[in-house]
Amino acid sequence: MVTAAAYAAMSADGPLEKTTIERRELGPLDILIDIKFAGICHSDIHSARNEWGGTKYPVVPGHEIAGVVAAIGSEVTTHKVGDRVGVGCFVDSCGECDMCVAGEEQYCRTGVTGTYNAKGRDGERTQGGYATSIVVNEHFVLSIPDGIELDVAAPLLCAGITLYSPLRHWKTGPGTKVAIIGFGGLGHVGVKIAKAMGAEVTVLSQSLSKQDDGLRFGADHYYATKDPGTFKALRGQFDLILNTVSVNLDIDAYMSLLALNGTLVELGLPEKPIEVRAFSLAANRRSLAGSMVGGIPQTQEMLNFCAEHGIGAEIELIPASEINVAYDRVVASDVRYRFVIDTATI
Amino acid sequence: MVTAAAYAAMSADGPLEKTTIERRELGPLDILIDIKFAGICHSDIHSARNEWGGTKYPVVPGHEIAGVVAAIGSEVTTHKVGDRVGVGCFVDSCGECDMCVAGEEQYCRTGVTGTYNAKGRDGERTQGGYATSIVVNEHFVLSIPDGIELDVAAPLLCAGITLYSPLRHWKTGPGTKVAIIGFGGLGHVGVKIAKAMGAEVTVLSQSLSKQDDGLRFGADHYYATKDPGTFKALRGQFDLILNTVSVNLDIDAYMSLLALNGTLVELGLPEKPIEVRAFSLAANRRSLAGSMVGGIPQTQEMLNFCAEHGIGAEIELIPASEINVAYDRVVASDVRYRFVIDTATI
Repeated sequence: MVTAAAYAAMSADGPLEKTTIERRELGPLDILIDIKFAGICHSDIHSARNEWGGTKYPVVPGHEIAGVVAAIGSEVTTHKVGDRVGVGCFVDSCGECDMCVAGEEQYCRTGVTGTYNAKGRDGERTQGGYATSIVVNEHFVLSIPDGIELDVAAPLLCAGITLYSPLRHWKTGPGTKVAIIGFGGLGHVGVKIAKAMGAEVTVLSQSLSKQDDGLRFGADHYYATKDPGTFKALRGQFDLILNTVSVNLDIDAYMSLLALNGTLVELGLPEKPIEVRAFSLAANRRSLAGSMVGGIPQTQEMLNFCAEHGIGAEIELIPASEINVAYDRVVASDVRYRFVIDTATI
Repeated sequence: MVTAAAYAAMSADGPLEKTTIERRELGPLDILIDIKFAGICHSDIHSARNEWGGTKYPVVPGHEIAGVVAAIGSEVTTHKVGDRVGVGCFVDSCGECDMCVAGEEQYCRTGVTGTYNAKGRDGERTQGGYATSIVVNEHFVLSIPDGIELDVAAPLLCAGITLYSPLRHWKTGPGTKVAIIGFGGLGHVGVKIAKAMGAEVTVLSQSLSKQDDGLRFGADHYYATKDPGTFKALRGQFDLILNTVSVNLDIDAYMSLLALNGTLVELGLPEKPIEVRAFSLAANRRSLAGSMVGGIPQTQEMLNFCAEHGIGAEIELIPASEINVAYDRVVASDVRYRFVIDTATI
């Protein structure tokens, strides 16, 4: 067993605290990773605070993990000691169903094993990336190309793939008009990726407070959704709208911005059902869709794409002692644009 | 002017009554059609009874029109006297916008002119197919191939294209698993067309009362949705689900039947917004979409396809005097499967 220093939530109400956890012995296909950086995703907060239910304590959050291979199991072939690697939202799947075989592990018929707060196939609870090390089956370990620093790569493992996957699936490229609702941890990475794919990119944010950043990161246009004129000006414009906002919006208003055959993809999981008028769908033959991170092959493709195009997340690097403050700031949308924990400080 | 005998609703509450209407003088691009048959679509009833609001009386319903060319304007090139022709849900559009140029007139930027209860570009109200004749611009007049009788062709002009268009758009063919919710005027035509395209076709009907017909018309499977076991048995099965039911269903339950990248298309327009959980979309990367009839080129393609495959609607042919009884029977879902008026009886 390997002992790791970690930060864990001990209850729904208390702060995350420093602790130690045990990582499993290396199996033949396992990789021991020295974690260098871990991004803070809003999901971490929902889980730590049991806002989705089902959290078992203590829980070490973190599924945006970047580090270096420290040891490999006897049959590992994909990575070697010293390799720069990453781990995202899941660390196991059945490997046998049609989804897994197709490299769409996120839709595994028996369900993926989440990187934390899940029951692993060995029966033990999984614990995430706010820690100094982790042991993961090689299939779920990504290579981080030399073109990206590890700290700005970490958020790509969740935020990056969450945006990259629908952009690819809905065939974003030159000539495509893409809008991104929300300009936070997910949205800002989406702008960079969509722009690098050749799309014309519009940010739809509540206000213009981050407009300068938006344009600097590659957006062609930036509109405030609190201005009703925005919805008139942009009517019927977009081939693809990615909604990164997790609260319930007036979806009909956003659907009206879609062009013929356009699709609005929900990337957040708002609490209440989405309400959409049938006419909003029938007009312009529109679709309302969902998407859930991406499979392992596509996640690697995303990392390679980001390295090639010099794309990393915009981050605020923090010591582990500031995790609890960072959580409150994420909830208040006071972060530009992703907190990343320097795990050397744990 | 041409005088036509017709059946019109005079008010929201009263029955349709026999009357006469004037059709406009033939313009150079107009075609005068001797109407032979007119299908009864549920939309006709909604309009006649002002259930959608906006009905102006008297109104002659009917947008499933089949007949024979009686006269043509001086510049008409597409049809000649004696040709078997049809008219569907719209009789005009701007002809200039990107949608019209692309042959997607149903999504015309300035709105199509409905076949009835609309204001034509000449300022006059349009009146539909429950009549002995109609005058329509040649662009909106379809050819009915010899392979289909006019009476069973009439319902294809609305019900047929409403199903054909999404089946084509979502690339139905051999290997595709299609489900059709509702086995009425729309659904039964959808079964025939989807089967002819090579798909594996499943009917999802409230009960099994029409199962024999379903299988006879080409369905491979027929399930009762009042049986909860149906939703367990068919989980994650379908590439495409077409919902022909206009009342609000438990859409999450139907979404759960979609396979990876599957799409559920709403063809009815239920009164209340559709409620769908974000997770229903994210799981299996599913889409909820809409579709509205089809453009003129695709409507012609549909008629050619139906002729080639021997597809017509299953109809109950009625004299005009039975229109009001037929309306009540449609509302009670007591029709197998489309009423068609023999306009010689008006």
